[in-house]
Amino acid sequence: MRITILGAGGFLGRKLAARLARDGSLGGRPVTALTLFDLNVPPAPDAAFPIHRIAGDVGDAATLSRAIPAGTDVVFHLAAVVSAAAEADFDLGMRVNLHGTLALLDACRKLEHAPRVVFTSSVASFGGGQQAMVPDDGRQVPANSYGAQKAMGELLLQDASRKGFLDAVSIRLPTVIVRPGRPNKAASSFVSGIVREPLLGLATTCPVGPDFAVWVCSPRRAVDWFLHAAAMDTTPLGIDRGLNPPGLSVTVGELLAALEQVGGAEARALVRFEPDPAIEAIVAGWPAAFAATRARALGFAQQEDAGAVLHAFLADDLEATRAERAMT
Amino acid sequence: MRITILGAGGFLGRKLAARLARDGSLGGRPVTALTLFDLNVPPAPDAAFPIHRIAGDVGDAATLSRAIPAGTDVVFHLAAVVSAAAEADFDLGMRVNLHGTLALLDACRKLEHAPRVVFTSSVASFGGGQQAMVPDDGRQVPANSYGAQKAMGELLLQDASRKGFLDAVSIRLPTVIVRPGRPNKAASSFVSGIVREPLLGLATTCPVGPDFAVWVCSPRRAVDWFLHAAAMDTTPLGIDRGLNPPGLSVTVGELLAALEQVGGAEARALVRFEPDPAIEAIVAGWPAAFAATRARALGFAQQEDAGAVLHAFLADDLEATRAERAMT
Ligand SMILES: NC(=O)c1ccc[n+]([C@@H]2O[C@H](COP(=O)([O-])OP(=O)(O)OC[C@H]3O[C@@H](n4cnc5c(N)ncnc54)[C@H](O)[C@@H]3O)[C@@H](O)[C@H]2O)c1
Ligand SMILES: NC(=O)c1ccc[n+]([C@@H]2O[C@H](COP(=O)([O-])OP(=O)(O)OC[C@H]3O[C@@H](n4cnc5c(N)ncnc54)[C@H](O)[C@@H]3O)[C@@H](O)[C@H]2O)c1
Repeated sequence: MRITILGAGGFLGRKLAARLARDGSLGGRPVTALTLFDLNVPPAPDAAFPIHRIAGDVGDAATLSRAIPAGTDVVFHLAAVVSAAAEADFDLGMRVNLHGTLALLDACRKLEHAPRVVFTSSVASFGGGQQAMVPDDGRQVPANSYGAQKAMGELLLQDASRKGFLDAVSIRLPTVIVRPGRPNKAASSFVSGIVREPLLGLATTCPVGPDFAVWVCSPRRAVDWFLHAAAMDTTPLGIDRGLNPPGLSVTVGELLAALEQVGGAEARALVRFEPDPAIEAIVAGWPAAFAATRARALGFAQQEDAGAVLHAFLADDLEATRAERAMT
Repeated sequence: MRITILGAGGFLGRKLAARLARDGSLGGRPVTALTLFDLNVPPAPDAAFPIHRIAGDVGDAATLSRAIPAGTDVVFHLAAVVSAAAEADFDLGMRVNLHGTLALLDACRKLEHAPRVVFTSSVASFGGGQQAMVPDDGRQVPANSYGAQKAMGELLLQDASRKGFLDAVSIRLPTVIVRPGRPNKAASSFVSGIVREPLLGLATTCPVGPDFAVWVCSPRRAVDWFLHAAAMDTTPLGIDRGLNPPGLSVTVGELLAALEQVGGAEARALVRFEPDPAIEAIVAGWPAAFAATRARALGFAQQEDAGAVLHAFLADDLEATRAERAMT
């Protein structure tokens, strides 16, 4: 299997590359080549198969064709300008999130065999708010440019699959927690922050109340979904290539209870509620729960509980995050 | 009011231009300039205001900016490669239907004031089939490239409206009948053909049975909707700029009954049922009815009955169609 990861230097791209290196195979077939593509040369894990690393812009057709060489079986398309950045710079978001996906289609059409494409769409393409339980056929009415660009990408890849140019599965990812690194300007930053910061021994604030619910998954589970989407039989999908995966609807209060279990009362005490109406106004529009019936029936694994999410962070990312943040 | 029609040489573009010329105003404000844009120089109706005619490709930014000059208040975006052509030539459909709409956005962003954009989307962006009664929040899962490109255009214009770059209303048009001219290769061609041909005194076949239902509107009503969309207050739309207008769900049998009323038994006798499984397979996927509750509440006029549709054809298009077809 010849595999390419676009956006391989990002949070989930690195985890996916590491998992492929560890497994050495995908869907029972050995990995024979892995190409890692990102704006800057992405880091490569130790692996028993050759790894090519390419730096370039996903919107640049020539570079992208090098990243998706003849014989490519699977492309994981994770390269994206994420929500706050796409909102702040409309043209940048369009260029990467829409035109990058158009360039991916062009590169795939040059291949002899239509490759499987796993596309990371987002729950940000839905509205509905705290009370919503989004059904599998829920309509996407994005309230932000990032979500609109993701929904357009889904339509494009769905039609390209019907035409036989490629064979896409689009996964509308929940908010992935616990994101390592530092707090950032994303409105969702606090969802990771309220557990990551205390586990690092740092005080933090929570801009919404304890009853606020959010649809989440762990990076481990996200990678499980990517691999399942890469290897599954797509026949049962028909023309509808978008899936709401079985994430977890969790409240801030439940996350903090899990934090207390894992990190003790002193960790929990590092979180102070400090309402922020600007952030509340944004995140209140996000649906907090999805039915995800179709994805479950298609074999996508259920996200475990909040405790498992925190344990995965402790095992996989706490030390690296601590080391990285000590350096700067 | 300075108005531009893209695709002004087509079936509906010509009717819209003629109506504006007749009315001399839009939403109570006088029309001061009209620009007609199409691949070839479009015909211009007699009007009391100046009409500029420009030939060019909607995907070409420079030409399009000339067609949408400073001070433009309203753009009707009707330019499109329609369903059969977009299916036969994927790249052509993408270039006109997607990249043309992207170029429109760029041209609008150059204007000082965000113009109203009326976009003609299509029921071809929905699936569901004969049994479906599509609700206002029905999900668009297009089964053809044309529908996918229209749905992407809607997402783009919706987000651009939210950003204040333009102020869009997208109308998902039903099959517009009676289309003048000749039978064509569109799978829906027979819906017009079974009334147009007999009214011209010509024999024709119907590829589906009398119970087959289809969602239609007349060109008069389509133009009414365009004008309402151009003048309405868009505040109540919020971020959701797509509308299913109140068309008419009509069966082939009902259309033929109306034909008999209007054209007599001899007209009706010119239609022979000749099942065509290939056409049936395509059109069976189209939803035959829409709730259209939201559009009605927003003041979009209801399509009248099949008799009214046929009378409009007799009054507006029969003679011209007869003359045109006699010439070739
Ligand atoms: N992490 C989440 O909570 C979440 C939620 C929903 C969807 N997603 C989607 O999942 C994917 C991966 O998410 P992530 O958290 O790893 O994001 P990330 O920002 O950490 O990684 C994205 C990568 O894309 C790269 N990239 C950006 N512009 C590029 C360009 N022009 N050319 C090439 N590469 C470019 C970035 O350098 C980055 O390494 C993204 O598509 C994201 O939209 C993530
Ligand atoms: N007529 C229907 O039944 C129906 C139904 C649903 C939606 N619509 C939509 O309504 C709109 C008008 O429909 P119509 O029946 O008048 O279609 P039409 O084909 O008669 O007119 C479309 C016009 O667009 C022009 N055009 C095509 N490519 C172009 C390009 N690259 N640059 C500039 N102009 C270009 C064509 O020359 C043509 O004059 C279209 O967007 C169509 O998709 C029509």
